[in-house]
Amino acid sequence: MEMIYTIDDLKRYVKGKQDANQTIGFVPTMGYLHEGHTTLIDYAREENDVVVVSVFVNPLQFNDPHDLEAYPRSEAHDTNICAAQDVDVLFMPHAREMYPLEIGVTMTLTKRMGVLCDRTRPGHFGGVLTVLTKLFHLVEPTRVYFGLKDAQQVAVVDLLIQDFNFNIILRQIPTVREPDGLAKSSRNVHLSADERLEAPLIYQALSEARTMITNGERNQQIILSHVQAVINQSRHAEIDYIELLSYPQLEALTSLKGQVILACAVKFEKARLIDNVIIDMKLDA
Amino acid sequence: MEMIYTIDDLKRYVKGKQDANQTIGFVPTMGYLHEGHTTLIDYAREENDVVVVSVFVNPLQFNDPHDLEAYPRSEAHDTNICAAQDVDVLFMPHAREMYPLEIGVTMTLTKRMGVLCDRTRPGHFGGVLTVLTKLFHLVEPTRVYFGLKDAQQVAVVDLLIQDFNFNIILRQIPTVREPDGLAKSSRNVHLSADERLEAPLIYQALSEARTMITNGERNQQIILSHVQAVINQSRHAEIDYIELLSYPQLEALTSLKGQVILACAVKFEKARLIDNVIIDMKLDA
Repeated sequence: MEMIYTIDDLKRYVKGKQDANQTIGFVPTMGYLHEGHTTLIDYAREENDVVVVSVFVNPLQFNDPHDLEAYPRSEAHDTNICAAQDVDVLFMPHAREMYPLEIGVTMTLTKRMGVLCDRTRPGHFGGVLTVLTKLFHLVEPTRVYFGLKDAQQVAVVDLLIQDFNFNIILRQIPTVREPDGLAKSSRNVHLSADERLEAPLIYQALSEARTMITNGERNQQIILSHVQAVINQSRHAEIDYIELLSYPQLEALTSLKGQVILACAVKFEKARLIDNVIIDMKLDA
Repeated sequence: MEMIYTIDDLKRYVKGKQDANQTIGFVPTMGYLHEGHTTLIDYAREENDVVVVSVFVNPLQFNDPHDLEAYPRSEAHDTNICAAQDVDVLFMPHAREMYPLEIGVTMTLTKRMGVLCDRTRPGHFGGVLTVLTKLFHLVEPTRVYFGLKDAQQVAVVDLLIQDFNFNIILRQIPTVREPDGLAKSSRNVHLSADERLEAPLIYQALSEARTMITNGERNQQIILSHVQAVINQSRHAEIDYIELLSYPQLEALTSLKGQVILACAVKFEKARLIDNVIIDMKLDA
């Protein structure tokens, strides 16, 4: 595995692969890799000649400098995981390399916004789009891999690729779960023992609601109330939002049709967890 | 010459050239081509295996829908000129092809703004960056060609390429002039006979100011006043702005050093003309 820290070295690598007509699978991450990420890497490994993983904690997508500082980092951990996953390049640029000067072009979303996590993290997704645009131009990937656990991120990257005609295939990878259904996340380690026991209620609630829909329930209020009731069985969970929207447009629905997403965010003492299910009303319901 | 109207056809063409390891020179235009454009095409022809010219009147960069409608268009004229210039591809997409849906990601400039033409055309350059980002992704050019007459546009494209790490070489081509010094422009046809006689005063003023600087003048007020005085010899010209800034940063200067731009915009009855000179204080002054 090649460790690359500079843009110049990365460009040289990419040029070499392009000249050899090799396809590049790209997994952009903020590091502290877990099984969610290794699943993305597995897909990338399967579908491309070479796999590039980036680890970059992007300052532009943090609203709070304390969050940015507190974000977990471990180069040794990430390097070991990538090496074990047969990754070809691990790109770990310093912030100075990615932002040598304050950025002069700002990206703002006017769609797929004002809902879900954007309510509490204004500006976050604009920062995500900026760093992804930079990384896409540096890696020039054939395919890029994102996990559906952060479905709004996937929807927003889908919009970026469409609106700006990026010549990149977006691969949306299903959420990886613990045996009890809890979505894998770096944040799960911050759950107390009691919270960890209760956290699977999130996916249980979403799964039960999905069954209600596939069994014919179409009243959105009844569906949302059920999710709320199940999650509220937890003594520690505090619901941030539960929403039912079109996917990937993320717009309110007058009736359930097309693809819909049922998504929620739940706060525990030291961790805010998100999860969702996506239902194709034609195929599944 | 190939005429291409759709994104799919363009992508197929570009893929073919990439597979053959050919370099692509790209000249993005809004059509109604004149000698300013053909000079850009000449440079592109000289430096690349294939030359792609786009003609697209970008609705996103017009503040006023009447301006957009009134913008001169002639497919036959542009086709003839490109064919005569040995262009390989003329890409003329319909607005529906470039913007099938309202765009959901907006680009805003926070640098190189608030000066020169941005004062009177708010949002214009954001629209320029959006369409160029799309076109750059579609054409995937090795080199892209812009004329220095619109130096702010060049500065802003330079910022776009840097900030977002586009893998594209920006070629800044000197302004093409009439024998009497007037910068070539599609707008010159809107000058009355009297105005046309006076319009060369603009470049005369800028040239004299450049000579003042190379001869040692460093007082910005004296330099700007001289430009003003020369242009005001015209009975019909109304000065919009005259500015002396760093280039390409477009920031006010406490003293003249590095590269500086002396730029102005002048209104006649039916045409607003812009022009500039760029001076390297180390080499030229």
